[in-house]
Amino acid sequence: MTYPSRLIEEAVNEISKLPGIGKKSALRLVLHLLKEDADVTHLLCRSLTDLRTNIRYCVICHNISDGEVCNICSGTHRDHSLVCVVEDIRDVMAIENTQQYNGLYHILGGAISPVQRIGPSDLNIESLCTRIQNHNEIKEIILALSTTMEGDTTAFYITKKIKEAFPHILISSIARGVPLGGELEYADEITLGRSIVTRAPYNV
Amino acid sequence: MTYPSRLIEEAVNEISKLPGIGKKSALRLVLHLLKEDADVTHLLCRSLTDLRTNIRYCVICHNISDGEVCNICSGTHRDHSLVCVVEDIRDVMAIENTQQYNGLYHILGGAISPVQRIGPSDLNIESLCTRIQNHNEIKEIILALSTTMEGDTTAFYITKKIKEAFPHILISSIARGVPLGGELEYADEITLGRSIVTRAPYNV
Repeated sequence: MTYPSRLIEEAVNEISKLPGIGKKSALRLVLHLLKEDADVTHLLCRSLTDLRTNIRYCVICHNISDGEVCNICSGTHRDHSLVCVVEDIRDVMAIENTQQYNGLYHILGGAISPVQRIGPSDLNIESLCTRIQNHNEIKEIILALSTTMEGDTTAFYITKKIKEAFPHILISSIARGVPLGGELEYADEITLGRSIVTRAPYNV
Repeated sequence: MTYPSRLIEEAVNEISKLPGIGKKSALRLVLHLLKEDADVTHLLCRSLTDLRTNIRYCVICHNISDGEVCNICSGTHRDHSLVCVVEDIRDVMAIENTQQYNGLYHILGGAISPVQRIGPSDLNIESLCTRIQNHNEIKEIILALSTTMEGDTTAFYITKKIKEAFPHILISSIARGVPLGGELEYADEITLGRSIVTRAPYNV
């Protein structure tokens, strides 16, 4: 593709570096910005620069935060005895949106993956142990990691580490099984098989 | 969706104003930018601001240009007797990519659309007439507009206007018909019907 202007080409190149946006979509966005008022572009750029420059992370749970400690960690109505361990900030937002959980979080920043050269020391695992040591109110660690090889490895590593150092801490995992509203015939074999093996008492 | 930080929320809001990007995709892009080096964000913002601030339009054909006159209009190897009228800058790029056309262009900046309140005076039609008047070398106007109601209305309007003022100018339209490589049974009725009515001599 040849572009009519060097400026267009550079903007398209930069936008198409973003995940999921190809050259054609990037060109569409560029032409959209040119059609709109200059303010639209300036507001967009200001908010992105602002974000990248001023973003802070909670010193306790590593969540994104406006201050030193995030709203969740500093919340007095929160159950400080529960810590839910997740890979990513998006997981926190997903769980928060369910409005079913009232405890705290701990964001690992990924999962152990030898292929991507991510080891335990690249994740916030050490800080989880320090956190358990310093906060006596923590009673339970809930593992909410992906059911991938990486997630399972990470869960295994964390469980082993915490059980050794803090035997009094309860370690649990979010329930795995057939999704609510899902029909059995469409559930994949592994999920269905596991949901039979790990069946739970039926409460009416 | 509740966001963990005001900065994230603002960036997501600005990005999701772009066409085809929703809140979820916007959040994905924001988290991607946070994961990457700050340079990625700064380069992106610089190229966008640069684009919006310094972009220029060719004074002859209204194409995007780095200088006062675009590369195509100032090209000496171009056929200056042909002017292809298109709606959009993207159309120029699409035709240029075919490498089958060696003439000039004239970008209208849209099509006549009473619904969207776009009248002839909102498009670069008057400047097309002035251009024909000032450039005696122009012999043919090729209409390459969409086959929509808006495109057809615009083509009709331009044809009428040019025929009245410049009866010596040849007005043509790009060929409409069954696409190359297309099978007849999959062509829509209107295209197929029209391709029979406007059949052309068969040259071997």
